[in-house]
Amino acid sequence: MTSTDSATSAVESRLLELGITLPEVVQPIATYVPAVVSGNYVYTSGQLPIINGELSASGKVGSDISPEDAKEYAATCAVNALAAIKSQIGDLDRISRIVKVVGFVASDPAFTGQPGVINGASELLGKVLGEAGAHARSAVGVAVLPRNAPVEVEVIAEFV
Amino acid sequence: MTSTDSATSAVESRLLELGITLPEVVQPIATYVPAVVSGNYVYTSGQLPIINGELSASGKVGSDISPEDAKEYAATCAVNALAAIKSQIGDLDRISRIVKVVGFVASDPAFTGQPGVINGASELLGKVLGEAGAHARSAVGVAVLPRNAPVEVEVIAEFV
Amino acid sequence: MTSTDSATSAVESRLLELGITLPEVVQPIATYVPAVVSGNYVYTSGQLPIINGELSASGKVGSDISPEDAKEYAATCAVNALAAIKSQIGDLDRISRIVKVVGFVASDPAFTGQPGVINGASELLGKVLGEAGAHARSAVGVAVLPRNAPVEVEVIAEFV
Repeated sequence: MTSTDSATSAVESRLLELGITLPEVVQPIATYVPAVVSGNYVYTSGQLPIINGELSASGKVGSDISPEDAKEYAATCAVNALAAIKSQIGDLDRISRIVKVVGFVASDPAFTGQPGVINGASELLGKVLGEAGAHARSAVGVAVLPRNAPVEVEVIAEFV
Repeated sequence: MTSTDSATSAVESRLLELGITLPEVVQPIATYVPAVVSGNYVYTSGQLPIINGELSASGKVGSDISPEDAKEYAATCAVNALAAIKSQIGDLDRISRIVKVVGFVASDPAFTGQPGVINGASELLGKVLGEAGAHARSAVGVAVLPRNAPVEVEVIAEFV
Repeated sequence: MTSTDSATSAVESRLLELGITLPEVVQPIATYVPAVVSGNYVYTSGQLPIINGELSASGKVGSDISPEDAKEYAATCAVNALAAIKSQIGDLDRISRIVKVVGFVASDPAFTGQPGVINGASELLGKVLGEAGAHARSAVGVAVLPRNAPVEVEVIAEFV
């Protein structure tokens, strides 16, 4: 058993209890990467709600997409961020703290519930990481996101 | 006298000279926190212009809100960021540098004066922190912010 | 020859091969600075596509500005970020890694090609920095940017 054996990872066990299996990390089609390690930190790229290579939904939250659905998509973004982090550090149990989350919500101009949407990401991180999952966070409503995604989440994680 | 005694803090004395008392930090209603310490850094959550629990104003800058008023709200965001930082490190005199400020301005699509708005935050930090307050900064105009706030500011501070 | 002699800088040589000369850094008209060094990191301010003090273009990508042109403007933002980094560390060859890029694209609400636009910055960094240029990245579409710029790019670089 190695440190990357998912059977031994407490974090991945909690993900499994939530019915979530970490996806393979999709390589961006560009000269950037899903995540970068620098010092004791992993910086992830902005993650979209992609499952098995398919964007879960497209459109603006508050008009095309309900806040409840958007919250689930934000959780998917957080799962993809964890997968990106794992691709760099091998074992999610090495995460000592989620330092920062920025959540971008593609928003109808009248929609002001961005925090509730990004709670989908925050709560997922709390459930699987416990106290290490408590992070600083910004949530903002943007005009439009890549591929018309409803939400995009980026993460900075500290690890040991 | 302890290091958290506000009477001994040069930074808080300068805030008081500006007529500003640091607020108590409002805990977000979610699994995130107002600020996180990692290494010698404090990362704050995005701060809204909230005073005594009330959002100072709501709406888009350039239509509902004047740039001049928005600049004052940005200063309030910076004060709230300082309060969040103090909640983690106890004494604002420990700040060695404001490393980064990101300012999000909920903007009418025709409004392009985001830098002038976020100057409200930058100038407040300069006044109370001196050279340690000189930071890298991004200012962008977004579609809409949480609770229809006109401005949101996040800060990364280095401390000793 | 000093470490800041551009003739000895491999990174600047590659910029020259691309026909790019690093500009002088324009000081922002505010209490913020083009870039801040903290530890082994340089954080740049958000960079606009300014050449010789002139904004290259203004307007929204997808309506006023073509994605192809916007991609070139993103490359200009990256060049300006490199200039800001050089102003702090003297020699771009000291960059060990571009850790993070955030690209904000002032977008027509129907435009969803933000990644293709920000590729202009990512590809420039890859061409001149090689593997050290491979970064984590977020690309988002915002309502409007300062001075009605079509694109704004901020960078975190690790150096030795």
